[in-house]
Amino acid sequence: VNIIACIGAGSIGRSWATLFAARGYKARVHDADPRVLESAFGSVRESLMELERADAIESAEECFARVEFVPTLQQAVRGACHVQESIVEDVQAKMSVFATLDELVPADTVLASSTSEIPGSCFMQQLKGRDRCLVAHPVNPPHLIPLVEICPTPSTATRAVMATKQLMIRLGQQPILVTREIGGFILNRLQAAVIGEALHLVGEGFCSVEDLDKAITSGLGRRWASLGPFAAGHLNSDGGYAEYILKFERTLRQLTASLETDYSWDRTLIERIDQSCRELTQRRSIRELQLERDRKLIALRRSLDGPVSES
Amino acid sequence: VNIIACIGAGSIGRSWATLFAARGYKARVHDADPRVLESAFGSVRESLMELERADAIESAEECFARVEFVPTLQQAVRGACHVQESIVEDVQAKMSVFATLDELVPADTVLASSTSEIPGSCFMQQLKGRDRCLVAHPVNPPHLIPLVEICPTPSTATRAVMATKQLMIRLGQQPILVTREIGGFILNRLQAAVIGEALHLVGEGFCSVEDLDKAITSGLGRRWASLGPFAAGHLNSDGGYAEYILKFERTLRQLTASLETDYSWDRTLIERIDQSCRELTQRRSIRELQLERDRKLIALRRSLDGPVSES
Repeated sequence: VNIIACIGAGSIGRSWATLFAARGYKARVHDADPRVLESAFGSVRESLMELERADAIESAEECFARVEFVPTLQQAVRGACHVQESIVEDVQAKMSVFATLDELVPADTVLASSTSEIPGSCFMQQLKGRDRCLVAHPVNPPHLIPLVEICPTPSTATRAVMATKQLMIRLGQQPILVTREIGGFILNRLQAAVIGEALHLVGEGFCSVEDLDKAITSGLGRRWASLGPFAAGHLNSDGGYAEYILKFERTLRQLTASLETDYSWDRTLIERIDQSCRELTQRRSIRELQLERDRKLIALRRSLDGPVSES
Repeated sequence: VNIIACIGAGSIGRSWATLFAARGYKARVHDADPRVLESAFGSVRESLMELERADAIESAEECFARVEFVPTLQQAVRGACHVQESIVEDVQAKMSVFATLDELVPADTVLASSTSEIPGSCFMQQLKGRDRCLVAHPVNPPHLIPLVEICPTPSTATRAVMATKQLMIRLGQQPILVTREIGGFILNRLQAAVIGEALHLVGEGFCSVEDLDKAITSGLGRRWASLGPFAAGHLNSDGGYAEYILKFERTLRQLTASLETDYSWDRTLIERIDQSCRELTQRRSIRELQLERDRKLIALRRSLDGPVSES
């Protein structure tokens, strides 16, 4: 059985480990903080049990038997066919862990970072093995949301991009290619655009926190789970995308000019939104809410992609 | 059986009529253009049959028997408990049709506009009955996506807002309240933010049209079908929304400052996207693609809200 090393066992690292195990790989999980590693143990087990309850895997126990939690980086990477780094979002920390990984791991093994917004060049360019380094940014939680952004640096070899793409497809993920480096890649830039304008709309009193979220969950999120913004436009006019945009041109230009995606929010607004979130979720624990989210994502994935099967 | 008048039978008006009929109301449909009215006839029937095939309604025939297509505005509104205007997005045209409706329709009946971006004040303020006028903006197609933005003008009576909200809930829709008028309301502003940045990312060569759409359908769209941007943030940190934002503050401010949601696109880019859309859909007809989209939306709605039942 092929081994994948998970370096960093926070929310992203543990979800990667869940995915790798669910898809028939061995996951070797390491975190510099033993408490995080311990909490990952319970969390991976729980996520696998959730997948079993949803019939997405046959046996959580069997999958969990393929996950090892190890106290050193050395143990984690030994014999691994792929290394997935998911430590804190800090350039210095990533630079240091990649330097160590580059020393430890054979030169033909891909070293991938889960960074959600830092271009790989910022911490991979000095490495001897920079040609096998790239970003493979998942969406939280990766064991339930299939998208992975593969973003090579100018030094990344095509071979490393192809190997990562193939691995992600074998894992049942859906990779896209970020062809030029940019902060936030594709996904977090689109998300930041929505978060920025959402803060503006709630901050200036155009709607409540609850109603803004509902505009997404009951409206745009459904359109976007089935069609991207380009395909949605293409289907909005009998003449296709160009006809749609030209019909809509004046409005679109007015709207985009009036957006305040770089709205200057303050902590008072954040505290008010935090209070609303707590009231709307009836102060239920974050963990309980995450499990409920995960159940929804499993149902969504089934309705969009058909049954998720163990490979 | 209560009657709802649908004024304008384009893609939005006919989908409203489908919803009204599917939910047990009589829909009286009018369009100034007889060819549009005729095409709506086939389209409503087809959409109801699609709902029947998906077990969302018992009998398309029974529902379709509740839809009337009428050649005059007068016939459409007679005895209606609610009037839903969905004509072209043009202030002058809306001003004129609302002036006629205000004359024809008893003063206690709500006149609602489906406008997706024009504040109601721009065409409702001169009317004698402006207190019963408001915007009730759906998401295309309303018979499959539940969100409705209710946006009163400063002259709208609370009574009209409450009646519309109640009607939408009886129809199985999920209304939100836009508490201050703004161009594009909530939904189209958030959508424009994504479209603007998407045009920037594809226009400047950071990814392909296909991969941008996939970032949404396989990534953000799934998150957003289950959680809005605020709830998603709340669940992203064990300490809730405030902790999440403060951890993420520097990155978020950098990202929102670097967005180009007001990207200056040109027709060459639009033509290129149009070509990609046609290639990606293998030049299948827009109508066929719309039916496929509708089947996905039915499956999504079932997985998110449970079975849609006839009321």
